[in-house]
Amino acid sequence: MTKFVYSFGAGHNEGRADMRDLLGGKGANLAEMASIGLPVPPGFTITTELCTAYYDNDRTYPAELAGQVRAALDRVEAAVGLKFGDKHKPLLVSVRSGARVSMPGMMDTVLNLGLNDVTVQGLADSANDARFAWDSYRRFIQMYGSVVLGVDHHRFEEIIDHVKLDRDVNEDTELTAQDWHRVVESYKDMVEGEIGRPFPQDPEEQLWGAIGAVFGSWMNPRANTYRRLHDIPASWGTAVNVQAMVFGNMGADCATGVCFTRDPSTGENMFYGEFLVNAQGEDVVAGIRTPQPLSRGAAKPGEISMEEALPAAYAELLAVRQTLEQHYRDMQDIEFTVQQNKLYMLQTRNGKRTAAASLRIAVEMADAGLIDRAEAIRRVNPAALDQLLHPTLDPRAARDPIGRGLPASPGAACGVVVFSADEAESRAQRGESVILVRIETSPEDIHGMHAARGILTTRGGMTSHAAVVARGMGRPCVAGAGGIAVDYSAQTLSAGGRTLRAGDTITLDGATGEVFAGAVAMIEPTLSGEFATLMNWADQVRRLKVRANAETPLDADTARKFGAEGIGLCRTEHMFFDPLRIGAVRQMIMAADEAGRRDALERLLPFQRADFRDLFSIMAGLPVTIRLLDPPLHEFLPHADAELAELAVALGSDMDSMRRRAEELAEANPMLGHRGCRLGITYPEIYEMQARAIFEGAIEVARASGDAPVPEIMIPLVGTLRELEITRALVDKVAAAVFAESGVTIDYTVGTMIELPRAALIADAIAQSADFFSFGTNDLTQTTFGLSRDDAGKFLPHYVEAGILPKDPFVSIDIEGVGALIRIAAERGRATRPGIKMGICGEHGGDPASIAFCESLHLDYVSCSPYRVPVARLAAAQAALGAATDRTA
Amino acid sequence: MTKFVYSFGAGHNEGRADMRDLLGGKGANLAEMASIGLPVPPGFTITTELCTAYYDNDRTYPAELAGQVRAALDRVEAAVGLKFGDKHKPLLVSVRSGARVSMPGMMDTVLNLGLNDVTVQGLADSANDARFAWDSYRRFIQMYGSVVLGVDHHRFEEIIDHVKLDRDVNEDTELTAQDWHRVVESYKDMVEGEIGRPFPQDPEEQLWGAIGAVFGSWMNPRANTYRRLHDIPASWGTAVNVQAMVFGNMGADCATGVCFTRDPSTGENMFYGEFLVNAQGEDVVAGIRTPQPLSRGAAKPGEISMEEALPAAYAELLAVRQTLEQHYRDMQDIEFTVQQNKLYMLQTRNGKRTAAASLRIAVEMADAGLIDRAEAIRRVNPAALDQLLHPTLDPRAARDPIGRGLPASPGAACGVVVFSADEAESRAQRGESVILVRIETSPEDIHGMHAARGILTTRGGMTSHAAVVARGMGRPCVAGAGGIAVDYSAQTLSAGGRTLRAGDTITLDGATGEVFAGAVAMIEPTLSGEFATLMNWADQVRRLKVRANAETPLDADTARKFGAEGIGLCRTEHMFFDPLRIGAVRQMIMAADEAGRRDALERLLPFQRADFRDLFSIMAGLPVTIRLLDPPLHEFLPHADAELAELAVALGSDMDSMRRRAEELAEANPMLGHRGCRLGITYPEIYEMQARAIFEGAIEVARASGDAPVPEIMIPLVGTLRELEITRALVDKVAAAVFAESGVTIDYTVGTMIELPRAALIADAIAQSADFFSFGTNDLTQTTFGLSRDDAGKFLPHYVEAGILPKDPFVSIDIEGVGALIRIAAERGRATRPGIKMGICGEHGGDPASIAFCESLHLDYVSCSPYRVPVARLAAAQAALGAATDRTA
Repeated sequence: MTKFVYSFGAGHNEGRADMRDLLGGKGANLAEMASIGLPVPPGFTITTELCTAYYDNDRTYPAELAGQVRAALDRVEAAVGLKFGDKHKPLLVSVRSGARVSMPGMMDTVLNLGLNDVTVQGLADSANDARFAWDSYRRFIQMYGSVVLGVDHHRFEEIIDHVKLDRDVNEDTELTAQDWHRVVESYKDMVEGEIGRPFPQDPEEQLWGAIGAVFGSWMNPRANTYRRLHDIPASWGTAVNVQAMVFGNMGADCATGVCFTRDPSTGENMFYGEFLVNAQGEDVVAGIRTPQPLSRGAAKPGEISMEEALPAAYAELLAVRQTLEQHYRDMQDIEFTVQQNKLYMLQTRNGKRTAAASLRIAVEMADAGLIDRAEAIRRVNPAALDQLLHPTLDPRAARDPIGRGLPASPGAACGVVVFSADEAESRAQRGESVILVRIETSPEDIHGMHAARGILTTRGGMTSHAAVVARGMGRPCVAGAGGIAVDYSAQTLSAGGRTLRAGDTITLDGATGEVFAGAVAMIEPTLSGEFATLMNWADQVRRLKVRANAETPLDADTARKFGAEGIGLCRTEHMFFDPLRIGAVRQMIMAADEAGRRDALERLLPFQRADFRDLFSIMAGLPVTIRLLDPPLHEFLPHADAELAELAVALGSDMDSMRRRAEELAEANPMLGHRGCRLGITYPEIYEMQARAIFEGAIEVARASGDAPVPEIMIPLVGTLRELEITRALVDKVAAAVFAESGVTIDYTVGTMIELPRAALIADAIAQSADFFSFGTNDLTQTTFGLSRDDAGKFLPHYVEAGILPKDPFVSIDIEGVGALIRIAAERGRATRPGIKMGICGEHGGDPASIAFCESLHLDYVSCSPYRVPVARLAAAQAALGAATDRTA
Repeated sequence: MTKFVYSFGAGHNEGRADMRDLLGGKGANLAEMASIGLPVPPGFTITTELCTAYYDNDRTYPAELAGQVRAALDRVEAAVGLKFGDKHKPLLVSVRSGARVSMPGMMDTVLNLGLNDVTVQGLADSANDARFAWDSYRRFIQMYGSVVLGVDHHRFEEIIDHVKLDRDVNEDTELTAQDWHRVVESYKDMVEGEIGRPFPQDPEEQLWGAIGAVFGSWMNPRANTYRRLHDIPASWGTAVNVQAMVFGNMGADCATGVCFTRDPSTGENMFYGEFLVNAQGEDVVAGIRTPQPLSRGAAKPGEISMEEALPAAYAELLAVRQTLEQHYRDMQDIEFTVQQNKLYMLQTRNGKRTAAASLRIAVEMADAGLIDRAEAIRRVNPAALDQLLHPTLDPRAARDPIGRGLPASPGAACGVVVFSADEAESRAQRGESVILVRIETSPEDIHGMHAARGILTTRGGMTSHAAVVARGMGRPCVAGAGGIAVDYSAQTLSAGGRTLRAGDTITLDGATGEVFAGAVAMIEPTLSGEFATLMNWADQVRRLKVRANAETPLDADTARKFGAEGIGLCRTEHMFFDPLRIGAVRQMIMAADEAGRRDALERLLPFQRADFRDLFSIMAGLPVTIRLLDPPLHEFLPHADAELAELAVALGSDMDSMRRRAEELAEANPMLGHRGCRLGITYPEIYEMQARAIFEGAIEVARASGDAPVPEIMIPLVGTLRELEITRALVDKVAAAVFAESGVTIDYTVGTMIELPRAALIADAIAQSADFFSFGTNDLTQTTFGLSRDDAGKFLPHYVEAGILPKDPFVSIDIEGVGALIRIAAERGRATRPGIKMGICGEHGGDPASIAFCESLHLDYVSCSPYRVPVARLAAAQAALGAATDRTA
């Protein structure tokens, strides 16, 4: 006979904390607490196996269940000296669901079960408190009626409102026993009218009804959706916990409360919580009365702490706090009730916490020897570190939300609205804080993005230009806020019927994607000592190197400050937008022939040489991977007539020719067009100039410092071996020429981006000519899915919401599809060239799940935005330690 | 000791035809001809192995070679009774290269080797013809000087011109023995000046110089390029043939000629060729004298046939023709020389031929029992069938070329230039033949493309809209003619400094991509009885089914006429452009909400229903695969303001809203945007309408004919299982509703396009919900390569030319990359659903190499343009018969 019912409390504990799969989180922890001697009201748990059996057998219970429940109930009755349904001393129970993981959408709780028209009188007598008894009864009908019988909860509220109106009072507390009695009668009538039969009076029927409701709620639509979104198998099932009621609302020596064993906000090792005298659990949440602090020290004037009000129970609770932390070795979130000065524990679980608290608790627990350092590393969610590196909105500040977009780059920012990069720059130079608002950004806007405190776009996704650049610069960004309309000519933005003009103040929360009118108070980030400690521990265990994607000296400095171990991706095209050189870049593009291009490239060479020299200097001793020009040429062209005219003059040409050339350069699908090494092959002089700049810059550094950098030159968008061979030969030729001219020879390597499905599939061939592979997971995601990051906004959010995709594949690597190609490429590349260096340099390089995937493939490094480097360092450490454990922040 | 030298002729034949790898094509066939008793001047072949050894050993010969050559030369001397270098009776030899496959770029031939200042006199004496001897000597110096010694051939011509000027004659024939003697002296002086040493007089030195030149030419740049482009390994090497000279230029009883055993143009079983009395081989080619026909019957007035001039040699040649065809069982291309009435065979090989000839020869040889039917099927190049199905330019007609583009759809067309689809239609209705000239075409131009005789675009590749639609309609098309500039406003096209206006006549050759000014005479296609015979034989052996891509009744009829076994791809969006419905389509797209869309869809439903009913009727008993709406919505929008305004009125909206909506619909990379099933998921009402139209149409046919069609409904652009599940559920829901309403239930299947790398990679999951897979190789090529077909024109032609890609991957499946994904998908799909039906429906469905690949994966069918169906039928038969043999047409 299968055991479906496990008792706990009163010295008979059949479960343990590690039986969470069978008993659910709540049931397992109740048994665990009881078994370590904590005061837990007795009860029992019906297993998740029963839930599965229930569904497997067409929603019927196995025959043996009734007997097992009865036996367990008998034990509870014996332990508390009450009888279920007894008219004098009735046992009341709570019925709660409890799955392996906490899951919204399922039935939560029914309290006071066992009350009926008869037992209510027994409760009144035994408690010597008729008002308490009738209040408990009406609460029971209300909960049971709504969650088990499916009656709309408004119907119950209407009745109370009606009685209050009738009695001309405002608060529930002003209602008498008689009033509650009247409410109960009206409740019963109303429920009978709704469900066509009387409210069940038989406690047994009530109990089975509640159990059935819990199991039934496992398959309701909300729970199904939640499970699908969170990848929770339906087969896990839920458990049901039935427990003897204890009452925090029987008088002034009673109370109920919730607390955390440490401050969940700061992590400080102090007892943190609140309680209410003479109250039942739901009252603390309802917010009708103001909960009071636990310790005398935390009490403000006028507040009465639990330490003062219930000193004995408080002392007992303090001891429990100690016991639980020692036992669970983590910060606990506790629910308790005090009934007539006696403390009862109703729940414990690992407490949710802020990033700062998570960090502090992990480090302090490790320092205290409660956990080891590996465990401390596992405990902190890397993604939450973003909170520590950027300003955040003060949670207590008032807000005036006007729209929402994608949380494209973390942090909060506040400033005046400007609609052009130039204005952003000029206003910022005057000392103003500005928010740059654009439909979308392009490389021409970089100076304005840099000048702005934050960036808001109404189009584009998590890897749109705005998002990528903002993350790189550490600027907060809300991208693709489709509900906000921008009118450049009117210089306004409108959302939800409201219109703001240029110069009005707005606030962005880049961590949530929210946009607010006006200024919202902010909290500046402070990097605690624990941060450095934990990062240090993480660095000691991780295997993956962490590099940064950076082009400017500023970004490179930031990256080093955050611990980057080199540059994994220097996007040379980002260097082309400086006002001092964009003219030459445009002339190069518009030139009618090679001679014209070479002329312009000649002027660009000194700039590029200086760029690389600076990067090599900052990254002294560390690898620097430089990607040759990648994007389609027309991205560099101006759109305004005035600038085109200027260009025409500079080139000795006319507007018609300029327009024609610009039209020639335009592409139907630029992402799939003439870019990357395709440009390097059709216009070899471009790559020649870049290679020359790299080698000359490196030689300058070698001469100045005596320590030669080893440039890693990366060819983008390779799809065939031949493309790599041709461009590699070009680089080698330039290297030989520069070495001969300068008399200095340095080491360098040439590798390729793997960012096309074809490159991944023929990686064995490509590895013949590549010293390293860098997976360009942004483009690989676009081509593998056939999904343009710039256009995905039209449907990708819906896809993620509806669970068609578990996550935005531009944020976290799609392991099933894109990951399959990366795996193929890694295997085939290594088959040709064992030990070939491999890394990733897409936006995924800063995503913990993607980093874990990189670890599983034994890649050598990840490369990410400078501000994501700490996240990557921690995630890499966790990946090295094996699958991350369940995190609580 | 390795044998490097193989003798032939004079009864000592060490080689055979099947030793082509070792002896090269020419050497093997010389030995073969000699061994079957044909009169071949004796000689020997130095093997391809020697060539390889030569390069492996740093361009030196193995020690044993000299002895083997000497021994073989001895045998030749003995056979012909002459001695190499003998001053009285000198043996002269020819030296020719001969690789496994004929290869341009390599050294070809040196004749008369062995002549020097002494032997020339011996030759004069023995031939009793001083002029012949000195002419032979100057020819030798000229050939040897240019191909072996590397002297520019102009230098030789200058000397002859100088002598002619001096002697005041125009023709070589007017020069005397003395003149040639003078030429020889000048040649020798000039050569010595060029190379710094005298022209070699030692016949041995001459011989080794020529042998070395042949082997050296194997690795010259032109040969290397040719090998790379044609995938010929350098390790194959070339052979060298040294053969005793026979002379066709020793008098009136001498001659030289080339002939084909059948007419290479028509395939007719008649002897076809030409000859020249008193001439050496090169004279026939040089075109200075007019060659004469072989048979008396073929002689025009004034011509003297070989049959008349040299009756004995002619009779012998006729017998040789018979022997060779019987022996080689294929039409032969022969070179011969007659020396003093004696016939000598110098070469035989399978003859090149036109498609018509190829077909006729194969069928007639099979009927005559010379080959079997399988061999007949193998003999015809499927791609060449295009010539038989379309008009072609008369090869004898004068042409005035003005430009060139891609050969996007075969056939020739001639008509007046028009620049808009509307004008094409109206002029065509007035009975004019028009050529539609566009920068590029869009779905709006379909009526004009249909009205036109041919289509010319200046942008776009082999799978651009123009190319795909033109092939589907069987209209000749030249696409992406980048050298031609179109000015719509001026109504002109310009190329190479010339300008043509609307109304001027041009001619297109869709098979070569050429564009001509004016009308060029054309030859109309005639489908011979052999065509039907061969197709019938092909159908009996092929395993792959052949379907057509068709939407209109006309296309479907054409497809059936060409033998299509169903429709593999009905692109429903093509049905949306009819003028009667485009208005409703546009309203659907521009509608602000679902209700507006449903309204427009309601109006489209009857049209779609009729579309499907017609297709099902035409394809009665055959499968019809219908792809639901695929392209991005904005493709359907008008660009002109007038049409937008019309739309605004129809929708009760204004221009501003229309423009805003159109802008909303625009995408940065539409190929990777909101299209395919992504539209079906965000706007389910569109697929609902289409599914309803399919089922209602099918039920109408079932009711009318009693024979219910089995629609195959195909979901485009699936990347995740969930997308397919959702859209499939939508189709199933509509099916259930229509069946309930009509009381009729029909069978149907739901499958998916595999056209994204991700779909291929997770084909095992997708197969859970797919009844069939259809590989959309166009899109799969775009995403695998990261290459937009619309933009590839900027560099893809260069890539193919430079050998970076062996072929345009939009024409022939890229087996290494795209093919790897198809293989993965096929394997994984079958793992989930053994025997799942699979086919391809991209443009590759009509490409023979791609069809062979489909056969190798055991796909079930290919689907292609109606006009490619015969090509596909033949290619499928060849694929079923195994790797195609070397073809000659």
